[in-house]
Amino acid sequence: MKQLNNLHLGKKNPVRIQSMTNTDTADIDATVSQILELAEAGSELVRITVDSHESCLAVPQIIEQIRKTSNIPIVGDFHFNGHIFLVKYPEMAQALDKYRINPGNVAGGNSRKKIEKTDTNFETILSVAKKYNKPIRIGVNGGSLDASVLEDEMNLEENKGKTSDEIFVGAMVKSAISSARFAENFGIPKENIIVSVKHSSVPVMISAYRKLSQSCDYLLHLGLTEAGGGNAGIIRSSIALGTLLQEGIGDTIRVSITPQQGESRTKEVKICQEILQSLGFRNFSPRVVSCPGCGRTTGNDFAEMAEKILENLEMKRKKENWDKKYPKFSSLHIAVMGCVVNGLGEAKNADIGIFFPGKGEGKNAVIMIDGKQKNISANSSNEIEKIFFKEVEMFLKK
Amino acid sequence: MKQLNNLHLGKKNPVRIQSMTNTDTADIDATVSQILELAEAGSELVRITVDSHESCLAVPQIIEQIRKTSNIPIVGDFHFNGHIFLVKYPEMAQALDKYRINPGNVAGGNSRKKIEKTDTNFETILSVAKKYNKPIRIGVNGGSLDASVLEDEMNLEENKGKTSDEIFVGAMVKSAISSARFAENFGIPKENIIVSVKHSSVPVMISAYRKLSQSCDYLLHLGLTEAGGGNAGIIRSSIALGTLLQEGIGDTIRVSITPQQGESRTKEVKICQEILQSLGFRNFSPRVVSCPGCGRTTGNDFAEMAEKILENLEMKRKKENWDKKYPKFSSLHIAVMGCVVNGLGEAKNADIGIFFPGKGEGKNAVIMIDGKQKNISANSSNEIEKIFFKEVEMFLKK
Repeated sequence: MKQLNNLHLGKKNPVRIQSMTNTDTADIDATVSQILELAEAGSELVRITVDSHESCLAVPQIIEQIRKTSNIPIVGDFHFNGHIFLVKYPEMAQALDKYRINPGNVAGGNSRKKIEKTDTNFETILSVAKKYNKPIRIGVNGGSLDASVLEDEMNLEENKGKTSDEIFVGAMVKSAISSARFAENFGIPKENIIVSVKHSSVPVMISAYRKLSQSCDYLLHLGLTEAGGGNAGIIRSSIALGTLLQEGIGDTIRVSITPQQGESRTKEVKICQEILQSLGFRNFSPRVVSCPGCGRTTGNDFAEMAEKILENLEMKRKKENWDKKYPKFSSLHIAVMGCVVNGLGEAKNADIGIFFPGKGEGKNAVIMIDGKQKNISANSSNEIEKIFFKEVEMFLKK
Repeated sequence: MKQLNNLHLGKKNPVRIQSMTNTDTADIDATVSQILELAEAGSELVRITVDSHESCLAVPQIIEQIRKTSNIPIVGDFHFNGHIFLVKYPEMAQALDKYRINPGNVAGGNSRKKIEKTDTNFETILSVAKKYNKPIRIGVNGGSLDASVLEDEMNLEENKGKTSDEIFVGAMVKSAISSARFAENFGIPKENIIVSVKHSSVPVMISAYRKLSQSCDYLLHLGLTEAGGGNAGIIRSSIALGTLLQEGIGDTIRVSITPQQGESRTKEVKICQEILQSLGFRNFSPRVVSCPGCGRTTGNDFAEMAEKILENLEMKRKKENWDKKYPKFSSLHIAVMGCVVNGLGEAKNADIGIFFPGKGEGKNAVIMIDGKQKNISANSSNEIEKIFFKEVEMFLKK
């Protein structure tokens, strides 16, 4: 798909990570800066809302600035008035790399609208996409599902006896696929159509994507919508995306967590990376395995060391470009353990492992490199950390 | 299973949450206090390490103190010397509600041992379990897998061509099932045998439990071992446990994250709760759905409100016992949204929802109760929060 600035989706391409800005798009500087920050963190597509005349005017300037240093595709998010903006602001339409369209509000609102109006507005958007050869995402969302589709689905004889969740899933998938087919029939090439059916409930979202992937072979954008904040948002997103990705469903993913005070927008990108890495799909940063500790581990030495090692690896990546300098960096497997019980085995299986002595297990930590034991005697955790990082760098250089 | 202090596992019982102390078991006060804290947070079983003579002597006193206020089953964790301790300290053996045995080190070490020695030690443990009618967990762990089982598995003709992960999975399952069968043949009732095959890699752990559940019908304890700290530990655990639970695998779960500075041990319990609740298995606390915000949402009003509501609900639970006072509390569904796009739909679908005005959407937030709109005019977020919580309590009282 040349249109996404040579970022390829689907087939044998890796599952791509995307995110969305939360700056006012009309604020060019803030938006450019957040896009670059998200890209630096690992976002491979960034979506920005296009919700006002001011934002339409800002888009070409934002993208011009981004293109000075980055090829990251920029997606425009349209609700209610895409058919107006995309025609009125051709520079904006040309500058964007992809349009996200919500079939639930193409007609301009959430209430039941005449299908004809939806179709006319949708055709207007599609003609712009066709003219500039832009990919589109048909982004259905449980919170803004086309009321008429849901109503029709509830009245279907074949749906009698189904649960309300089952009917809702059916309606989301029907809305997505009928819009995608409409676009395809209109002349948008299939490989330029990406489809999503987000929902805020984990089981409903999983059912919807399973049904969607059984019913079509469009490229799929996965997301649990409105996942919430804190650990709940992370847990829900991980289960939802993790389950589907293991089934081979999903070409690009986004995590939609509510940022809590002081949290950077890049957090959602890091969560996507960890989901993909946990599954063995892609490697982004060293995998640090460490135990929870128990009554057998003495003090918090290993836990503090695990935390220090994580911080230090991130620092080495950021400040010394270890990810670029050492090809093995992002697939490095490290174990930091609190006693010998599982410590020996985990350290042996890791590229580099360290286990601290549990109660009654002697005084010194043991480092294992490529399965070979190296006893170290050090007087402080700082010293151990230094020795450990020297070994890490030696391993990466090999 | 009367033996677990009337806590029932398996069949139609809910998936049970468990955790483990990280206090020195010999420190009676610290261990009692952490067990009670974990129980209060929602842990339904607590495991403590029994790794020294001092800890063996402490166990009966710990359990005596716990029993003054709680029936929570206490599990003893044995490695290397369970066969010695369980015989030498009958009061400890009697006081515990369950023994965890690691087939990888029953013989006293991690290196290849004579099978006879493993069997003799194992028989010693089993006779104690039989005598006191205690359930046992056969807890295989990738970090301490019996080396002889792995070696035998590698030499099997039928395993030629398999990947090392596949062979490892086969060896873990074989070790677990052969030990469980050994115990059953020895006279431990099947319903008193719980089996686990933990591993620190998400895909390997998932494969191992799938194979295990296909190969036997023992009660299963699920866990991703050594999940690590920070968000990585949460994400890995969520995917691993979430995937298997959806397949109907798992009767009790534990999350093994490395605590970071200042983190309470109860965090692992809360993660277990959120995993089960995300899947719709059990309800523990109100589900707060909230959006990630984007360029359309004005300011951070909704995100701050979402965070405040979460904190406030937790406070109401802790200080005013809302979970006990209001039966609907733990299944309450709340939505906090930043604009009308998905705000209206999410708020409608929730028991109580609120959405703030996005750019150009007017001035006031809208509350929806049971799908019915209530416009509110308030001058500050504190005022909105007060109105919202009044509605929440009214809904709970209904």
